[in-house]
Amino acid sequence: MNRLIIALLFLISVNFAQSTYLLFSANDIKEIRANHDKYPLFKTTYDSVKQSIDFTITQPVDVPIPKDAAGYTHEKHKQNYNSMYNAGFFYAITGEAKYADFVMLMLKKYAVLYPQLKKHPAAASETPGRIFWQSLNETVFLLNTVQAYDFVKEYLSKEDRTFIETNLFRKLADFFMTEGIHEFNLIHNHGTWSVAAVGMTGLVLKDEDMVQKALYGSDLKKEAGFMKQLECLYAPDGYYTEGAYYARYAILPFFIFAEALENEKPEMKIYEFRNSILKKALYTTLQLTYSTGVFIPINDAIKEKNFTSPEVALSLNYVFRRYGADAQLLWVAQKQKMVTLSYSGLLVAQALGDILEKDIPEFGYKSLALTDGPNGTQGGLSILRTGTISDMTMLVSKYTSHGLSHGHYDKQSICYYNQGREIIPDYGAARFINIDPKYGGRYLPENKSFAMQSIAHNNLVQDEKSHYNGKREISDNFSPSFRFFSVKDANLQATGSWDTTAYPGTKILRSSFILKDAAFEHPVVLDVVSSFSNDIHKFDLPFYYLGHFIETNVKYSANDKERKPLGKANGYQHLWNEAQGTCGDFFSFTFLNGERFYTISTTADTNTTVNFVRIGANDPKFNLKNEPGLILRKQGTTSLFASIIEPHGKFDEVREFTSGVYSSVQSVKTIVHNSQVSIIKISLKNNSAYTLCIWNLETDAPSAHSIKIDGTEYKWSGYYSLIKN
Amino acid sequence: MNRLIIALLFLISVNFAQSTYLLFSANDIKEIRANHDKYPLFKTTYDSVKQSIDFTITQPVDVPIPKDAAGYTHEKHKQNYNSMYNAGFFYAITGEAKYADFVMLMLKKYAVLYPQLKKHPAAASETPGRIFWQSLNETVFLLNTVQAYDFVKEYLSKEDRTFIETNLFRKLADFFMTEGIHEFNLIHNHGTWSVAAVGMTGLVLKDEDMVQKALYGSDLKKEAGFMKQLECLYAPDGYYTEGAYYARYAILPFFIFAEALENEKPEMKIYEFRNSILKKALYTTLQLTYSTGVFIPINDAIKEKNFTSPEVALSLNYVFRRYGADAQLLWVAQKQKMVTLSYSGLLVAQALGDILEKDIPEFGYKSLALTDGPNGTQGGLSILRTGTISDMTMLVSKYTSHGLSHGHYDKQSICYYNQGREIIPDYGAARFINIDPKYGGRYLPENKSFAMQSIAHNNLVQDEKSHYNGKREISDNFSPSFRFFSVKDANLQATGSWDTTAYPGTKILRSSFILKDAAFEHPVVLDVVSSFSNDIHKFDLPFYYLGHFIETNVKYSANDKERKPLGKANGYQHLWNEAQGTCGDFFSFTFLNGERFYTISTTADTNTTVNFVRIGANDPKFNLKNEPGLILRKQGTTSLFASIIEPHGKFDEVREFTSGVYSSVQSVKTIVHNSQVSIIKISLKNNSAYTLCIWNLETDAPSAHSIKIDGTEYKWSGYYSLIKN
Repeated sequence: MNRLIIALLFLISVNFAQSTYLLFSANDIKEIRANHDKYPLFKTTYDSVKQSIDFTITQPVDVPIPKDAAGYTHEKHKQNYNSMYNAGFFYAITGEAKYADFVMLMLKKYAVLYPQLKKHPAAASETPGRIFWQSLNETVFLLNTVQAYDFVKEYLSKEDRTFIETNLFRKLADFFMTEGIHEFNLIHNHGTWSVAAVGMTGLVLKDEDMVQKALYGSDLKKEAGFMKQLECLYAPDGYYTEGAYYARYAILPFFIFAEALENEKPEMKIYEFRNSILKKALYTTLQLTYSTGVFIPINDAIKEKNFTSPEVALSLNYVFRRYGADAQLLWVAQKQKMVTLSYSGLLVAQALGDILEKDIPEFGYKSLALTDGPNGTQGGLSILRTGTISDMTMLVSKYTSHGLSHGHYDKQSICYYNQGREIIPDYGAARFINIDPKYGGRYLPENKSFAMQSIAHNNLVQDEKSHYNGKREISDNFSPSFRFFSVKDANLQATGSWDTTAYPGTKILRSSFILKDAAFEHPVVLDVVSSFSNDIHKFDLPFYYLGHFIETNVKYSANDKERKPLGKANGYQHLWNEAQGTCGDFFSFTFLNGERFYTISTTADTNTTVNFVRIGANDPKFNLKNEPGLILRKQGTTSLFASIIEPHGKFDEVREFTSGVYSSVQSVKTIVHNSQVSIIKISLKNNSAYTLCIWNLETDAPSAHSIKIDGTEYKWSGYYSLIKN
Repeated sequence: MNRLIIALLFLISVNFAQSTYLLFSANDIKEIRANHDKYPLFKTTYDSVKQSIDFTITQPVDVPIPKDAAGYTHEKHKQNYNSMYNAGFFYAITGEAKYADFVMLMLKKYAVLYPQLKKHPAAASETPGRIFWQSLNETVFLLNTVQAYDFVKEYLSKEDRTFIETNLFRKLADFFMTEGIHEFNLIHNHGTWSVAAVGMTGLVLKDEDMVQKALYGSDLKKEAGFMKQLECLYAPDGYYTEGAYYARYAILPFFIFAEALENEKPEMKIYEFRNSILKKALYTTLQLTYSTGVFIPINDAIKEKNFTSPEVALSLNYVFRRYGADAQLLWVAQKQKMVTLSYSGLLVAQALGDILEKDIPEFGYKSLALTDGPNGTQGGLSILRTGTISDMTMLVSKYTSHGLSHGHYDKQSICYYNQGREIIPDYGAARFINIDPKYGGRYLPENKSFAMQSIAHNNLVQDEKSHYNGKREISDNFSPSFRFFSVKDANLQATGSWDTTAYPGTKILRSSFILKDAAFEHPVVLDVVSSFSNDIHKFDLPFYYLGHFIETNVKYSANDKERKPLGKANGYQHLWNEAQGTCGDFFSFTFLNGERFYTISTTADTNTTVNFVRIGANDPKFNLKNEPGLILRKQGTTSLFASIIEPHGKFDEVREFTSGVYSSVQSVKTIVHNSQVSIIKISLKNNSAYTLCIWNLETDAPSAHSIKIDGTEYKWSGYYSLIKN
């Protein structure tokens, strides 16, 4: 190599090293170049992405005419934006022209195709796209491709730049700000994606007007746009109003655009905005997972989703860099088994490389009461936790606002985890995402007719109707109210809410507890649901369960020769009525899940009936999961369902060893139940007993309560008390 | 310590070290004493058992009056025999009197109790015990306690020895040889336990008559007893006639008694008996597991059972010592995470301690055709395997004899594994073992009415009746016949069987293959079932599947508003008829399990119907698992069901990525089907095709076959051929 060439290469390399990109400072690029093979987690991702893109760029470029919603063309366009991003990134790192050529060629194909496209042929949503069936995917496309373009634009001729910017990026941005204007200005994850994509495009194209509209809404009035989304979609403590599954999804555009703003407009101090709301967003999203990392599947949710999803990994990497290197995040990063190809990702990988496995602190799962709504005034969600990561007891009580378009009618519903498993589940969404034969991978009709309905959840249902009559325009205006949350006694964690809006004229209270006591092998759940009305109603309380029916104390009749749906509407039509019975003086039901038995024991009387049900009726396309449940039913102006959910025993099939198959509970009885107070006595077989008192008025009496029943005086202060006899 | 005491201790210790016990030579004891803390796996077991027994011996001894079949008294007596064994062992190792005292006290309590006992109050089987509900458990009790006694008998006074031997051990042995004589002489796992227990007792009590009866039957005629069991229960290649689940169970008394005989009667060379049948027994039992270690659940079987069960660990330890230290056994031992507290266990732990993880060879899972019956003439079982341990494809074809009392009517049934999971399952047994509220933990009534019946399995059913009309006295006499097994072409492994006995007058052939071909992402299964009769019959072929219904090409009508059982008897009464339809020119059905889709594509015509079913009808106590299946049905004098089972695509919910949701198969069609030959054409969507020819006569034509259909000549030799076009 002669000197001239060496000098020339040096010059190119220096110039090249000084480039900055949307999400990368010149120094970020330099660090990645120097260290990409130093830390196992980064190296693995780097090498595997590089290997994959190195292959992809040798293959013919296919930019097909859009056709399907979950088939080849859908997946191909998804692959394409990912490939362009990755090729762009490796051009920035290596300076090898082959990567830039690939991006250029593909972008030009899209710039030819895009202006010809009309509404996508498989469009079924109200917000169709052109390349994709819904415009949401199209914003993701723009977000990725504009970054790919940012990486290579210096490599392109002026003509190519103009051609691509005019025919692809400006047209896409225009599309979102004209036909897609409703979503662009919407406070919703679709809106976040839209403004992030347009905002990033503005930054790359140096179009400040576009950036301002993305930040403050199309009319610049600050009633929409990215900043408003940050204000409205997250509650003050970081709860995302659509729930955990969409929190996971929305967090990506929030962080990508924030990171771009931090690079391009550092004066905005975006990461400090609203008391560091983005930091809270990530930590709270992580708190919305069980110890296995799965998200609590409230509202529309694909249940297998967990914190290893790439969106969470990306956000975690940025938080680790921008908010201080919190070691407990490494525990999550380790399970993610990936970092993003960013300087933040490099820092996480480096930290993980430097720390001993045993020194990584577990993520700080804790009990917490989250508020919902921009000001934290729209109800909320409490999580009670106890135990270790490997055997965590977790009880979720949901009393949030509706949660936008993906919300369910499930006020004050609960779900319960133990043994690293879901035990009393939330159904989540009826959807087989990306599976074309299942309704194009979209939400299935049964999502609305069953999964969203109240009876599909572990909450009180009045007169077989859903909360707010299943009308979102009503539900959007209301939420239950927080009553109490207390973890000061680690052996009796408590939370409670009340509601008068789901069924006008009816007040519903729910108080839930995790009790640790030597009388029980494992922590137990106490759960008291009561309702008060002036009129007579039918009250249903379902408990769905995962596991196998073992026994019940109810003399039931089984519909095992002919089976019919339990009802006709509001989700009841999807429940097979497997058996029914009338309770005696209390209800008890035991099922087996994994290595433990679970017994639900509930107050009952001869006015209480139970139906054993299974999901799946009126489902001709086999779209629903056939999970079992039971529904307790009482009729009257008031109802009380006080339950103890007790895990017990051990069932080890490999060693053929079984113990503790029977519950410790002898009975659960109502001592008194009126508008002021409910007192429940839980008697154990070992002759001990608990008296649980719940104050039923909305206001907490400042002084001590006292009531005398059959000669016994019950005294307590506050919303509740539990006395062991 | 003065010299005298030291000398005395030395003397005791020397004497003590020279003791030998049933399963331990003096040297074995010495080695364990010297090395118990040297190898992690042994140390872990040793320490944990010691910790547990050290606690147990401080607790009050409870020898309760027997009462239940799966409750406290049942579990307590189980604990007791284990505790006595462990205390005895630690006395032998440590010489500490506290262990011997514990065994002595408990044995004396049993010696007081036992003579007072009559038939167990919860006895329900034909072979009741006294301490336990069935005599089987009582033999296990004796097997363990007589070893405990063997450990401590030198410590006991002559009076105590006489008292215990007379009132407990001789009475137990007498019980098995009088009231229990039928089982004692039975060729069955119950018999093995019985003779092993009595034989061990004879060895400990130096009662040679007892030993001889245990070895050769109560009349010493060698038509029963341990040696006959070894001859009859295992086929020449080590297949245990009851199937994998009971192979796992029976192997324990075989090895315990064999080991005792090896120590006490080395001249018998028991480990060499019948070409080392005990070695084959263990290796074959291991081959009867999937790559996850779970046993193939043919016949009565608890499905979660796997090769980590203690019986297998014990046998493996002995095999490792007695038949040469085969390193692949260490792979299994490592997953067992335990060794037994024996010198053999010490050797395994030592070997594992000395080898690097990466140097442990995987267990040598392979394809194999096992014969059944003492002479290998009663049918058999073929297993075809391909792939790695982490993603093994396994197809089981069962054409064994009935399998004694736990046998199912499932001639020529198949089951199929992939992805580390069961995909096309065998139901196993209807039983919740040891769970008292589920029929005392015994086999449930539904085991006989459903799980044993033919329709509960993936095999051909004629006229809605079970094989041999569900009569064991007939079934015991017959088995299908082996046709072929070939793995010489690794890309087309094959096995086939034929049967004329399950339904007299009907000949049924089944040929099954695993095909590896670049046209498919994963290996596929080809499966051809045909029947020939002179009369018109209705032929049902079920495929049970684990997973979720995705789609079918059949226009079916769903019974989703009202559901009824499919039939009235022979297991059909337990199937909900979820939907029915008439097939077109071929049948296709896709389901999702884990991260893959599976499509079953089968030859069909408009005379072929399909029912989609779910297990669980006529099951008022919710004893059955509600798993789904489909049943293909044809009517005529002959039938042909030729299927391809294809795993395809990838469904990754965490990354929201889906590919290959549609099968590669375009159609499966019958070219010709007659008594001589079946020719099937499988066409793929990529325009390639396979022609599968099956020779239908029992005898393999020595020369080439040839047939001309519609101008095309098909030529092949042997039982089958697969030609790719």
